[in-house]
Amino acid sequence: LDAGIQLRIPVIIAGFGNVSQALVRLLNERFTYLRDKHGIEISVVGAVEGGKDEFFSAFLESGLDLDLLIETKRKSGRISFYPQCGGNSSTLELIKMSGARLLFEATPTRLNGGEPGLSHIRTALDLGMHVVTSNKGPIVFAAHELAKLASIKGVKLFYSAAVAGALPIMPTGEYSLNGCRINAIEGILNGTTNYILTEMAAKKLGFEDALAEAQKLGIAERDPRYDIEGYDTAFKLIIAANALMNADLKISDVEVSGIQKVTYATIDSAKERGSALKLVGRVEKREDKINAKVGVEEFRITHPFYSVNGKWKGVIFSTDLLGEVVVLGGASSPTFTAGAMLRDFLNISQFSDNKS
Amino acid sequence: LDAGIQLRIPVIIAGFGNVSQALVRLLNERFTYLRDKHGIEISVVGAVEGGKDEFFSAFLESGLDLDLLIETKRKSGRISFYPQCGGNSSTLELIKMSGARLLFEATPTRLNGGEPGLSHIRTALDLGMHVVTSNKGPIVFAAHELAKLASIKGVKLFYSAAVAGALPIMPTGEYSLNGCRINAIEGILNGTTNYILTEMAAKKLGFEDALAEAQKLGIAERDPRYDIEGYDTAFKLIIAANALMNADLKISDVEVSGIQKVTYATIDSAKERGSALKLVGRVEKREDKINAKVGVEEFRITHPFYSVNGKWKGVIFSTDLLGEVVVLGGASSPTFTAGAMLRDFLNISQFSDNKS
Repeated sequence: LDAGIQLRIPVIIAGFGNVSQALVRLLNERFTYLRDKHGIEISVVGAVEGGKDEFFSAFLESGLDLDLLIETKRKSGRISFYPQCGGNSSTLELIKMSGARLLFEATPTRLNGGEPGLSHIRTALDLGMHVVTSNKGPIVFAAHELAKLASIKGVKLFYSAAVAGALPIMPTGEYSLNGCRINAIEGILNGTTNYILTEMAAKKLGFEDALAEAQKLGIAERDPRYDIEGYDTAFKLIIAANALMNADLKISDVEVSGIQKVTYATIDSAKERGSALKLVGRVEKREDKINAKVGVEEFRITHPFYSVNGKWKGVIFSTDLLGEVVVLGGASSPTFTAGAMLRDFLNISQFSDNKS
Repeated sequence: LDAGIQLRIPVIIAGFGNVSQALVRLLNERFTYLRDKHGIEISVVGAVEGGKDEFFSAFLESGLDLDLLIETKRKSGRISFYPQCGGNSSTLELIKMSGARLLFEATPTRLNGGEPGLSHIRTALDLGMHVVTSNKGPIVFAAHELAKLASIKGVKLFYSAAVAGALPIMPTGEYSLNGCRINAIEGILNGTTNYILTEMAAKKLGFEDALAEAQKLGIAERDPRYDIEGYDTAFKLIIAANALMNADLKISDVEVSGIQKVTYATIDSAKERGSALKLVGRVEKREDKINAKVGVEEFRITHPFYSVNGKWKGVIFSTDLLGEVVVLGGASSPTFTAGAMLRDFLNISQFSDNKS
């Protein structure tokens, strides 16, 4: 990037929950850094929240004031109270009229078809906008369709924030292992289950007690089935395998089991053998046949997963050109997810900068 | 990248040792894959080996036959025996007359000023060529000068192959952590010393015996000082810190100690405490002050470096936006180094593709 060239990139944000708010704070706080180091001025021209029949939006072609946007949300509950610029445009309306070059899609993950995120992303790509999303749903259901659309339109769709956020699974596969054939991916991909297993081992707890404690701390959901039965791990595995191993997996292709039947006795006897139990998603390609499964496995002290404790996660790629590459990373949080979205934005803008 | 667009990229190769030969084999073997998946046809138009007053070169504007190039080197010892296309152009002459878009620089690392690699890289960048190098020398001595030149010329200089090759330190910093401030980097960056320490622990050997064994296996050099005294680690640390932490370190800024004084007794007493000894390079930024050192440190079972054994390496990045990210990777080899160079090439070509 040539020093001195400053590229103003108008962006919009769909969904305005914790992740979007963290993202706006980050874009605000990093404005000077991004301008000086990357030569980019990110201008948030619009944002929208709500859904179904009721939307709350804010739009200003010259760019919303980010302090005021956050303040409006905090004080009034709805961004549509943003002075002079509030409205009730739907997400699709905002995408179509915004003139933005990039959509940050951070609506909640829905795993029954990926809507409404899927329509948001499809519409944006179709209009020639780049998309960065933290939403697993559309990617699980339509990764290949969306990738093809993005390629035709000459734009990028990045979703590293949807796959274990702070743990850089997608950028490692895309960049660090560029040119490699990835023959296998195995990962501790879910922080909640890893936390529960770690607590059971450390405090000699049964599964139900450890779960209750995690729920009390807000680490496990009130309905924890999605995490503890292994489905969150399976969906992340599907996204990674479909993008990085040229697979076309659906959830029905994955043999899924969770941690709900793990007892302290099992953990203790593994411990006596110098091992630890982890919930692992594993996908392997052999002679173009792909096998994917999620389940509890035992790892010895010498294995890099042994020390992945608490809410930490980890992934191992087996490649032809660079051997095995292990990546371990920290717990997720709205701030880290926003950090992952900023990363995707910058990786995309490195492509696009050269265009202008 | 639009499907169907095929981009022929003429490249040249400086230095024709093990790494270059592995690279040519790789480019040959991956030709169809790169064309079909990345839309790129890599055409090696020239290569040159030798140095000082005697060079051996091969050049063909339409692209050398890679099988024949390898075969010529293998059978005749010199690539200048390539039928009809051999010659004695110097590296600088080849760079200037080749019309190539990218230089693969794989001449040997010289740590007294970085020549001749430095002149090769400077000349190529100045002509508007991208450069991918496995040569630490020029980067240790002139990273900022070369980065500035590349930026002015609108081209890229990538050198992940020069920093622990198979362990993706540079792409993790550039892409996976894009937008983060990296506050610290610590790494097991040298395979030879890690192998020796691992063998001492496993076989209860003294340092001299473990070194002799590593030398017999070709893992340690006959003159092993560069590795065992910590300098290889220090140079890799300098390259990473200067590129990723906006540092400007020289070797004289780094407090360097090696493994030559480690005894089995020290290793054994660490083992009794549940720890292992590793040679670690560590650079930390505090209030814009940078501290860098290389030395032996002790890691407990719960630390990710504990299980980094044998020729494996590892790195931990401490960042503001994504917390700690750990990357562990395998041993180096000419093939892995070539794989790292191909990775850099593809990461560069993703920028440049959009230009055309």
